[in-house]
Amino acid sequence: MIINGRPYRTVWMEGTVIKTIDQTLLPGRFEIVSLRDHHEVAESIRSMIVRGAPAIGAMGAYGLAQAVSQLDRGDLNEIERLKQFLHATRPTAYDLTHALNTIFEKIARESDLPAMQQAAINAAEAYADQSVEACRLIGEHGNRLIRDGDVILTHCNAGALATVDYGTALAVVRIAHYEGKDLLVYVDETRPRLQGARLTAWELSQENIKHLIIADNAAGYYMQQGEIDIVITGADRIAANGDAANKIGTYEKAVLAKANNIPFYVAAPITTIDFQCDSGEHIPIEMRDESEILSIAGKRVAPLTSHASNPAFDITPAEYIEGIITEKGIIDPAGIGRLA
Amino acid sequence: MIINGRPYRTVWMEGTVIKTIDQTLLPGRFEIVSLRDHHEVAESIRSMIVRGAPAIGAMGAYGLAQAVSQLDRGDLNEIERLKQFLHATRPTAYDLTHALNTIFEKIARESDLPAMQQAAINAAEAYADQSVEACRLIGEHGNRLIRDGDVILTHCNAGALATVDYGTALAVVRIAHYEGKDLLVYVDETRPRLQGARLTAWELSQENIKHLIIADNAAGYYMQQGEIDIVITGADRIAANGDAANKIGTYEKAVLAKANNIPFYVAAPITTIDFQCDSGEHIPIEMRDESEILSIAGKRVAPLTSHASNPAFDITPAEYIEGIITEKGIIDPAGIGRLA
Repeated sequence: MIINGRPYRTVWMEGTVIKTIDQTLLPGRFEIVSLRDHHEVAESIRSMIVRGAPAIGAMGAYGLAQAVSQLDRGDLNEIERLKQFLHATRPTAYDLTHALNTIFEKIARESDLPAMQQAAINAAEAYADQSVEACRLIGEHGNRLIRDGDVILTHCNAGALATVDYGTALAVVRIAHYEGKDLLVYVDETRPRLQGARLTAWELSQENIKHLIIADNAAGYYMQQGEIDIVITGADRIAANGDAANKIGTYEKAVLAKANNIPFYVAAPITTIDFQCDSGEHIPIEMRDESEILSIAGKRVAPLTSHASNPAFDITPAEYIEGIITEKGIIDPAGIGRLA
Repeated sequence: MIINGRPYRTVWMEGTVIKTIDQTLLPGRFEIVSLRDHHEVAESIRSMIVRGAPAIGAMGAYGLAQAVSQLDRGDLNEIERLKQFLHATRPTAYDLTHALNTIFEKIARESDLPAMQQAAINAAEAYADQSVEACRLIGEHGNRLIRDGDVILTHCNAGALATVDYGTALAVVRIAHYEGKDLLVYVDETRPRLQGARLTAWELSQENIKHLIIADNAAGYYMQQGEIDIVITGADRIAANGDAANKIGTYEKAVLAKANNIPFYVAAPITTIDFQCDSGEHIPIEMRDESEILSIAGKRVAPLTSHASNPAFDITPAEYIEGIITEKGIIDPAGIGRLA
């Protein structure tokens, strides 16, 4: 992605230090943080310095490679323990599971520590590169759905910041924009953490793509007014039956899209598909702290005696999803089984 | 309503001074403001010190009575001008139109200034009293829909603060609670102005009614989980065909309720019905300033180069409304014509 005119990835490694853009500070401040061990990596995921399923996956891959590079002995039990430690940071995103398993399998093929360390680093770099290429291809495939002049609604941030580069939903927007199509993107602000207003709007601003931020409550209004041509979101985990977990509120927008005959697409790499998971009801939904609702920008908005409930994700049943835009093409949610 | 153990109305008159609770300061600070002329009254509506269709109606009634009490001559053209001035504050709430017309008609029957002034004050007091009684009756009628143990979802603040007393949707909750029913209220925080998190949660806290604040994005999740038994909201204007304008996001919740087979009710006094308005598409939708989206609690959250679009209301088509809870009983939205 282009930031202040320079190309960046969301997460990368320099020597044994992992670098990432601190997404909690955007759009007010653009700052790169350095993560020096697996404790810092886990905390960066938990505190959402890095977020978005594919980005969390890459961070997990680099995190495990870094942790192995800091070991004294090539003990697979210890590496398995580090893998579990990184895995426990956030429960819903499947890319993290996939990435950690991928790196671990490469390590487990080696028998001595230096070979394990080299394999881990190579595997993490390959994982990140493949993730970038998958997102670029998602953009290419999704671009076929976009006509000149289209108005696109998106929820949360399924952008370059949520991946290693390009994004998923925003890869489609980027490629269509690069091809000269005139677009307008309605950006759900995405309470409680405002990833739409803060991150998606920032990415679109950086690339001069026309957009308008709206309250999540206004998405239905604009659909009803006939102003939205297509809805595209990302996903944190897709079950084998095509049900998709994504940022809380995605299910609402999908139901509203159907009620207004607007096609609703999910854009995600194959690594987001959990083939072991039969249906959405088996996807774990992370409950986050009530303070994300009760206070905004550090200021208490709710009465002191009130409490909140704060699910971070919801499940959009496959019946609401027109298609899943992957690096292998646009697939029918009912056809996921065949990909396995 | 009970505030700190004492009964209050949202708006009332003491001599020629109008008093109202400053709703922009809640729940952090409970403060009564004094409005001394029609400029201060208009500003209190525009700046949302007072908000909610029935409360704006009562404020308009008192405001016109106060303005007439400050005139030197009983000039009906001048009074008509004052009425238009107060009417121009907010476009969507129909109660304001209704209240101003009611007071004006009473004034127009008199021929000398003192009689006009007395008629205006009497009419404003009667309007407020009738509004309180209408809301109490809405609560009584709506209570028949509520079973012990029910979980109710509401959007925005359709509480005592949105009326003169009792509320509309919250009148139903109050009466059911007074009758000893065990309730849980899910409160949509209601971006952008957070009337749910700030005002509804505060009213429920004051009366010890169990509630949980949620992001607007989470309402669909809880409906899908089967945790919501009934949805009740207020309305700002109801068209003759039963379409209802209410706080932005209401339409979303109504569509989601239907998709999940949950009954969706609108609670509103008859004064909210605009019999001259054929259907929802003729209800004017107020667009508010983009700063309500771009900044929160005075802090800019969006990129400086981004813009927002901020409709304050949306239209819920009658087909999504199970019934309208009025002071005359619960009516089918299709049966509104007969009320005229």
